[in-house]
Amino acid sequence: MELRLALIGFGGVNQGLFELLLSKKDELRKYGIDTKITAVTDLRLGTVTNPSGISTDALRASIQAGLSAIPLQADPGTSVTPDSDLDATLKLIASDFVDVVVEATFTDPQTGEPALSHCRTALESSKHVITTNKGPIALAQQELVSIANRNGVFLKYEGTVMSGTPVLRQISTTLRGCEVTGFSGILNGTSNFVLGEVAAGKTFDSAIQEAQVLGYAEANPAADLEGSDVQLKVMIMANALWGAGLCRDDVPCRGITGLTESEIRRAITEGGAWRLVGSARRSSDGTIVASVEPKELPAGHPLLAATGVTNAISFDTDVLGLVTVTGPGAGRVETAFAILSDLIDIGEKVIAGATEAAA
Amino acid sequence: MELRLALIGFGGVNQGLFELLLSKKDELRKYGIDTKITAVTDLRLGTVTNPSGISTDALRASIQAGLSAIPLQADPGTSVTPDSDLDATLKLIASDFVDVVVEATFTDPQTGEPALSHCRTALESSKHVITTNKGPIALAQQELVSIANRNGVFLKYEGTVMSGTPVLRQISTTLRGCEVTGFSGILNGTSNFVLGEVAAGKTFDSAIQEAQVLGYAEANPAADLEGSDVQLKVMIMANALWGAGLCRDDVPCRGITGLTESEIRRAITEGGAWRLVGSARRSSDGTIVASVEPKELPAGHPLLAATGVTNAISFDTDVLGLVTVTGPGAGRVETAFAILSDLIDIGEKVIAGATEAAA
Repeated sequence: MELRLALIGFGGVNQGLFELLLSKKDELRKYGIDTKITAVTDLRLGTVTNPSGISTDALRASIQAGLSAIPLQADPGTSVTPDSDLDATLKLIASDFVDVVVEATFTDPQTGEPALSHCRTALESSKHVITTNKGPIALAQQELVSIANRNGVFLKYEGTVMSGTPVLRQISTTLRGCEVTGFSGILNGTSNFVLGEVAAGKTFDSAIQEAQVLGYAEANPAADLEGSDVQLKVMIMANALWGAGLCRDDVPCRGITGLTESEIRRAITEGGAWRLVGSARRSSDGTIVASVEPKELPAGHPLLAATGVTNAISFDTDVLGLVTVTGPGAGRVETAFAILSDLIDIGEKVIAGATEAAA
Repeated sequence: MELRLALIGFGGVNQGLFELLLSKKDELRKYGIDTKITAVTDLRLGTVTNPSGISTDALRASIQAGLSAIPLQADPGTSVTPDSDLDATLKLIASDFVDVVVEATFTDPQTGEPALSHCRTALESSKHVITTNKGPIALAQQELVSIANRNGVFLKYEGTVMSGTPVLRQISTTLRGCEVTGFSGILNGTSNFVLGEVAAGKTFDSAIQEAQVLGYAEANPAADLEGSDVQLKVMIMANALWGAGLCRDDVPCRGITGLTESEIRRAITEGGAWRLVGSARRSSDGTIVASVEPKELPAGHPLLAATGVTNAISFDTDVLGLVTVTGPGAGRVETAFAILSDLIDIGEKVIAGATEAAA
């Protein structure tokens, strides 16, 4: 089965996906999936389309030239226009030569836009959607799922939490049969890195600076350090687990900047460590309590396995007790892998559905 | 779809399964699965059969009375015979009122028997097999898989490694699309508990004694402490991942009894810890190197998250780097959950297969 992809946003993550689709071509075929990129849109590049598939060589040349349109203009059958505003993008998304829309633009935590409009239009046009963008999922998960269900398409967002490390997939596959009653996680690598560096003796300022130099932190690191990035992830997880419909006001949020350097260092001497923990728990009456806050974890705590920029999440389950998954929480290829795994899931379901429909 | 189960061995694990099948009845229905126990055999109980399903109340009463046959004899339609030797069990396994054979007898690491014969006969009789028994899988995985494939049935063994904590399922579901190039794990809770107690100041002897009192260690704890339990698990994992066909001689094995109490305690003062690590790695030329040995892990190592009887396994992958899963490594209900999850997998595949066949 061939899936024709529209890549919305062509930054690190979707460029990583482009590479993975090439290196994992044979792996995808094992699941009966062939892919073709028929559309790419990005602020820096404009809108590129080719219903027969954009040439791989031209895309590679464009990336190597810093997202230049020139190699793509030379590709026969490929059209390049400078428009990449919302109208142009929504029109592109609804095109009949697109089966799957891969949304990887920037996250706006207040409105989710323009990603939310991208996802909504795609689902309403009966396109499958894969996104790594926390905004639309945290803010409008239930609405989007209901549009997807109504149109018989799939909405997948593994990459919104812990990049490609399997987290959301755990719930629907390996942990099925268990009831997950709560979770707590280290869901932001930047703040975790900063805590580790401060524990090791750096000042907050120099730890943040180092995170910026290493590419872990944005120029404005507030979303990472003040917890709002984790807040969105807690909403996504709680809503995926329990259809909780949590909004930002339901998740009290406190970051790590209120901690003092000396208390961070003291914890280490006692064998534990401070971590920024995002968590949620459902009581037997259905009430959900969620929060983002720094916690001093004692020696031996499973979340202490997340050091540096590594992330971890512990699921509290009825039958197995705590099950913890530790792995990368960010990275372009790691996040692109989340998209690849969502693509395999969608391909498998579409193939199974086609078989069922024929039955 | 109804699955009729034969429980081979009715000790803690299959008794735990009996409880889970009751408490998770509605959960199983979500996957379209109903179950019925039509046969139970155990050395202490004899052989119990009822093609229409053995009464739940009678089974519960039998368990409460220490595996008494009396409540079962009183159940109309249920037959109880004292025979539970190999011949009687193989005859039972081949019965036409059995769809799934759940093998949970003891592990013989030398021959795999009688579990190996149970599994072989079941698969040859076109019954699905779920086992938590390391012996047959470590020693004859390839043979058993090929019988299963030939007869169009499934062989599942999630419970052989880390009880119900998802490990084997990770490879086929959440990590698909990744190439796993190696793994290393803390795969034996008893030895891990003993190392932790010795690190905290106990002598080896008193730590082992405590493990026995708490029910973590057998009267003869050699298989746990000398590494042969982990050796079987490494063989199972390597064979599942790479069809490696490893036998015991391919996995050099050294346990923890050669460590001194003082070196175990010294590691702790330096922030690390000794662990019994089972690992295997595949080189690009296909060669596999596997071992079981105590290793001193440095502070921050992801496997240090496994403390006490908790287990952990790190997968080394091409795209995500290290992904680590930490969770229970033993326990009756935890291991029974592995069977439940295998049952869901089988039910789902059988239902999908029936749909496909009808297409």
